[in-house]
Amino acid sequence: MNDHTYKKIELTGSSSVGIQDAIENAIARAAQTIHNMRWFEVIETRGHIDEGKIAHWQVTIKVGFTLGD
Amino acid sequence: MNDHTYKKIELTGSSSVGIQDAIENAIARAAQTIHNMRWFEVIETRGHIDEGKIAHWQVTIKVGFTLGD
Amino acid sequence: MNDHTYKKIELTGSSSVGIQDAIENAIARAAQTIHNMRWFEVIETRGHIDEGKIAHWQVTIKVGFTLGD
Amino acid sequence: MNDHTYKKIELTGSSSVGIQDAIENAIARAAQTIHNMRWFEVIETRGHIDEGKIAHWQVTIKVGFTLGD
Amino acid sequence: MNDHTYKKIELTGSSSVGIQDAIENAIARAAQTIHNMRWFEVIETRGHIDEGKIAHWQVTIKVGFTLGD
Amino acid sequence: MNDHTYKKIELTGSSSVGIQDAIENAIARAAQTIHNMRWFEVIETRGHIDEGKIAHWQVTIKVGFTLGD
Amino acid sequence: MNDHTYKKIELTGSSSVGIQDAIENAIARAAQTIHNMRWFEVIETRGHIDEGKIAHWQVTIKVGFTLGD
Amino acid sequence: MNDHTYKKIELTGSSSVGIQDAIENAIARAAQTIHNMRWFEVIETRGHIDEGKIAHWQVTIKVGFTLGD
Amino acid sequence: MNDHTYKKIELTGSSSVGIQDAIENAIARAAQTIHNMRWFEVIETRGHIDEGKIAHWQVTIKVGFTLGD
Amino acid sequence: MNDHTYKKIELTGSSSVGIQDAIENAIARAAQTIHNMRWFEVIETRGHIDEGKIAHWQVTIKVGFTLGD
Amino acid sequence: MNDHTYKKIELTGSSSVGIQDAIENAIARAAQTIHNMRWFEVIETRGHIDEGKIAHWQVTIKVGFTLGD
Amino acid sequence: MNDHTYKKIELTGSSSVGIQDAIENAIARAAQTIHNMRWFEVIETRGHIDEGKIAHWQVTIKVGFTLGD
Repeated sequence: MNDHTYKKIELTGSSSVGIQDAIENAIARAAQTIHNMRWFEVIETRGHIDEGKIAHWQVTIKVGFTLGD
Repeated sequence: MNDHTYKKIELTGSSSVGIQDAIENAIARAAQTIHNMRWFEVIETRGHIDEGKIAHWQVTIKVGFTLGD
Repeated sequence: MNDHTYKKIELTGSSSVGIQDAIENAIARAAQTIHNMRWFEVIETRGHIDEGKIAHWQVTIKVGFTLGD
Repeated sequence: MNDHTYKKIELTGSSSVGIQDAIENAIARAAQTIHNMRWFEVIETRGHIDEGKIAHWQVTIKVGFTLGD
Repeated sequence: MNDHTYKKIELTGSSSVGIQDAIENAIARAAQTIHNMRWFEVIETRGHIDEGKIAHWQVTIKVGFTLGD
Repeated sequence: MNDHTYKKIELTGSSSVGIQDAIENAIARAAQTIHNMRWFEVIETRGHIDEGKIAHWQVTIKVGFTLGD
Repeated sequence: MNDHTYKKIELTGSSSVGIQDAIENAIARAAQTIHNMRWFEVIETRGHIDEGKIAHWQVTIKVGFTLGD
Repeated sequence: MNDHTYKKIELTGSSSVGIQDAIENAIARAAQTIHNMRWFEVIETRGHIDEGKIAHWQVTIKVGFTLGD
Repeated sequence: MNDHTYKKIELTGSSSVGIQDAIENAIARAAQTIHNMRWFEVIETRGHIDEGKIAHWQVTIKVGFTLGD
Repeated sequence: MNDHTYKKIELTGSSSVGIQDAIENAIARAAQTIHNMRWFEVIETRGHIDEGKIAHWQVTIKVGFTLGD
Repeated sequence: MNDHTYKKIELTGSSSVGIQDAIENAIARAAQTIHNMRWFEVIETRGHIDEGKIAHWQVTIKVGFTLGD
Repeated sequence: MNDHTYKKIELTGSSSVGIQDAIENAIARAAQTIHNMRWFEVIETRGHIDEGKIAHWQVTIKVGFTLGD
């Protein structure tokens, strides 16, 4: 293993289903353009309420990926 | 959209099922008396352990709602 | 001066004008129902962006007021 | 034990005697109107100084209580 | 209830299934050697990403248990 | 409303005029290349002092914008 | 003085008397099995409320002790 | 540029006008006795409320200045 | 009341008696050279342990005082 | 000096040598594509352990650079 | 890779040489009794000063290791 | 050992060499006027980048020293 450098970006995924789905949506969207994603960290969990029920979960994560040489 | 003022209150929901159920319980209970709830933010996730298993999940959230004019 | 007890509540004021106006709006709204407000603390400053410009400033404050005996 | 929901409020108690007395004053005052208080958490300890001595201790706590069904 | 002393330890559970499963795995593993576990607090939620998908969830918790007299 | 993913970037705006102008400068600069900006959060407010006066205000914000599908 | 290594553990002491007694109880309990304790740091102060009065103070501390060579 | 050492002090400025005026007041007062001030960082923004209006803004800053050789 | 500027300094008081005594010792020592002290805030509570008992409590506070015009 | 806007990105550098080398590796890698880097801030220092020794140091930094007009 | 559980402990290493040496001392000491150490995180860096010079660096780290099945 | 009071001041040392040199520079500069320095704590590590390389490391520390009786 060499001395890699990683970049971390911050994403907010949303979902009407729940916390994990919001995270998976954000990672799936990022996978369209970023390769070599390695890890994520949950920063914040929140959501919108509509008519007394949770309409959307919104989870902010940081995603780390390897920068190519 | 006018210059609304929102109030935020802090609630702890509990559930023997899991994290999301604890949050939904807290919001359902609050909906009995508060209208115009708009968003929530998760502050803390914890729980009670009984005989080596999780007996209750306890999730503390802040809930924001619109103050009427 | 006696041994007063204070209650602190959390409000989010909004304004299309700016930070101070958002704070003043929140305090003016609270003054309709709360007497004896004594101090505030700014917790968070954020806002909505629309078409590349700030549409609304949103400032969250805590407000402390004296509980009557 | 059922799936209770708890509300947490923030109070600042003051006392010329000391830290614990300030906390106990805040809880005693809250007990006049709130039933089913279950726990408290100390958030901040501070005080006023007058003529080189502590005139008042001021302790901010969060108090959690059960919301009735 | 007497004046118990509790010890808190920090564990990271992992799971390919999700957040709650990672927490339950950590508590189940701890239950092999620790009795009288009473509560847990979630400290951090993160995970590994492999080929654009979440391979493992990793949740760090603190677990509190009663020290025998 | 669908399950959008948002990206958050961190910017520091500067201004000789004041806090709000520094924030507006940063957002105006970002608007040259980023569309669909939705919200900002103030992270840090600081500034340079020259000859006993504030020469530049520097405000660090996070800006969230919608990632296209 | 050599290059010692210290271990820090986290304990929660409880007491019906007050904050200092809760800390002293935790340290007295730890002293049954740990030698060479050197310092402590208060992490959190909270307590249980029963019938409008504080039933137990609960103070979480970290305790550092020297690891033998 | 040599290897300077800077000292940082903490000041609270107050103003009946607003946030920036409170900061500028604190820096103007410090300039009476401190030379070579280089930067400031806002730590906390709060204020006093009197009769339902903001009577004084109080902004706490850290100010860094070069120590002479 | 005019637009005062306050300076805040950080002190650590120690005492073999307890938390409040450590705070009062620090303020009494500061009063020898600083006039117009107005408030304090507790930052950290810790202590030294000797032979399984607390030998010294050490409490770090910030003290605010008015700067003369 | 004009009213520049800066962007801050988050990088994790790694090194088998040590903390400063990990930071310098991250900045050297970033310099391949980013011009006008102005400052960095250390966010987190950690590392991997293999067979009881540190195999890689991993230091996360934020790097600020000037956005061209 | 299975669903491992990791335990994290907190250590303070000291050294008259410097930061990295203090960390390496702590890990070397821990390696005497703990196998399968996997990572560390730096929590706090401090030190003792004697006669105007640094006598000992003290670095607190968390170390994570795999719990055997 | 008596009930000493300590004062803590905040310094930023700089160095073109590295982190430890920046800390040692700050302490050496402080030693010119302050006696009885006892400990330091690292608060922040950052630096300036010039032409893609680190030009200056800047480390902010708190230094505690004994106040004479």
